Amino acid sequence: MPDLTSTANPRVKALVRLRTRRHRDAAGVTVIEGHDELSLALDAGVAVTEVYWAPDLARDPALLDRMPGARVTSVSRDVFARIAYRESPDGWLAVAPAPGRPLEVLELRPDALVLVAEGVEKPGNVGAMLRTAEACGVDAVVTATADRAGTDFANPNVVRASKGTVFAVPVASASSAQVRDWLRARGVRIVVTTPDGTTELGRADLTGPTAVVIGTEATGVTGLWLGAADETVVIPMRGTVNSLNASIAAAVTLYEATRQRSRTSAG
Amino acid sequence: MPDLTSTANPRVKALVRLRTRRHRDAAGVTVIEGHDELSLALDAGVAVTEVYWAPDLARDPALLDRMPGARVTSVSRDVFARIAYRESPDGWLAVAPAPGRPLEVLELRPDALVLVAEGVEKPGNVGAMLRTAEACGVDAVVTATADRAGTDFANPNVVRASKGTVFAVPVASASSAQVRDWLRARGVRIVVTTPDGTTELGRADLTGPTAVVIGTEATGVTGLWLGAADETVVIPMRGTVNSLNASIAAAVTLYEATRQRSRTSAG
Repeated sequence: MPDLTSTANPRVKALVRLRTRRHRDAAGVTVIEGHDELSLALDAGVAVTEVYWAPDLARDPALLDRMPGARVTSVSRDVFARIAYRESPDGWLAVAPAPGRPLEVLELRPDALVLVAEGVEKPGNVGAMLRTAEACGVDAVVTATADRAGTDFANPNVVRASKGTVFAVPVASASSAQVRDWLRARGVRIVVTTPDGTTELGRADLTGPTAVVIGTEATGVTGLWLGAADETVVIPMRGTVNSLNASIAAAVTLYEATRQRSRTSAG
Repeated sequence: MPDLTSTANPRVKALVRLRTRRHRDAAGVTVIEGHDELSLALDAGVAVTEVYWAPDLARDPALLDRMPGARVTSVSRDVFARIAYRESPDGWLAVAPAPGRPLEVLELRPDALVLVAEGVEKPGNVGAMLRTAEACGVDAVVTATADRAGTDFANPNVVRASKGTVFAVPVASASSAQVRDWLRARGVRIVVTTPDGTTELGRADLTGPTAVVIGTEATGVTGLWLGAADETVVIPMRGTVNSLNASIAAAVTLYEATRQRSRTSAG
């Protein structure tokens, strides 16, 4: 018999409540659903605290061995159907500490590379940026948002779109003014990408401590960032429409930075 | 009175049929819905043949001046609701020749840059790749697909996700074997991106006639492309998860090619 077979159990109700941001924020947790998503999150180093699995549904029970610190609860198919988010649940669901921490506690290396995304909201875009940032080995991804609650990094759609990298890259969210002040206090150069930038991307020096600032596709960065910029850079474009996705603009700029840095360290 | 006020009109029925690929393919057309999408497609040089607009819904009637060769039909709000795809139609819908042409008629410059995407299907990914390819000034985007009908570039979701660039970049779709043979016959070097690549991206020579081949996120390129590769390249990654979106991998590689080419032409 599974540990949990009644959908009326208070623990089931508590899990269902975690679908809303308010309850996740209050508990300081996120929810990871699906075998592959959980596996990626474990690759990224997430510390799962609770795992729920349905032996009737779940493949690969050995996945449990990768969560030695977690409280393991087996559940019936009915209970899993109740706690699952997805239409075709695969029998795996875990609870973990929410990604995201206060700006002040983020640690930066002397030649830090930080991605600042202003106004980015769509989980798909946040996720794609996190994946690229992780592959580039950035120190942190910081979102600058007008929403006082900040970016919801614990949103299961962000977790999924990020392929687990939201747990591998230090992330934070604050207002643009807070992010600017934090960067300045730490001596990080602010490089803003904008179609009106004065320096072509390949000619900008991105080797020192650098924050790459990306705005939204629709309106670009706000005036605060244009005013705060130590340098504005433009990604060269040769077409007639010239419309890059925001996560593509972030990737092209971050890879230019890593290219310059690998040359520096090689020479 | 608008020109068309009856939803029973045969022209209305013909437009509704264009929602299915079969009818679009038979007519050789695509459908562009929405003021902004239509405006972007016009920026990209699309030759609209028919335009339907609802004076009761549509803003900016001056958009009509940008389609001098099109047959213009004003329609009632009811008719527009019938022909529209979207839930909140804005009163603009146009018919244009389908993007995509036979591989054989694509023209390549002596130092051609071609993006080959194998197995890419999601309109969002196809659209993001087209936007990047347009910004990089590639000669063509070619999709290699196992589906005999090829990529449906005339799918309104692809048109929308591409921000109109599907009309600005020459596009074609064929089987992987056909694409390989076409590249070889034209003396285009085949550079395949793969996690197992032997050359780091920044060290590969991408200045001559080059096709950049990108596989799917899940399974990468097929063996055919590994066998056909003149060079295999790996995008450097520094993280632990190291999972790039396919359209990001395409962007990083295409921008490296344009960077190398601008240095060559400058020197």
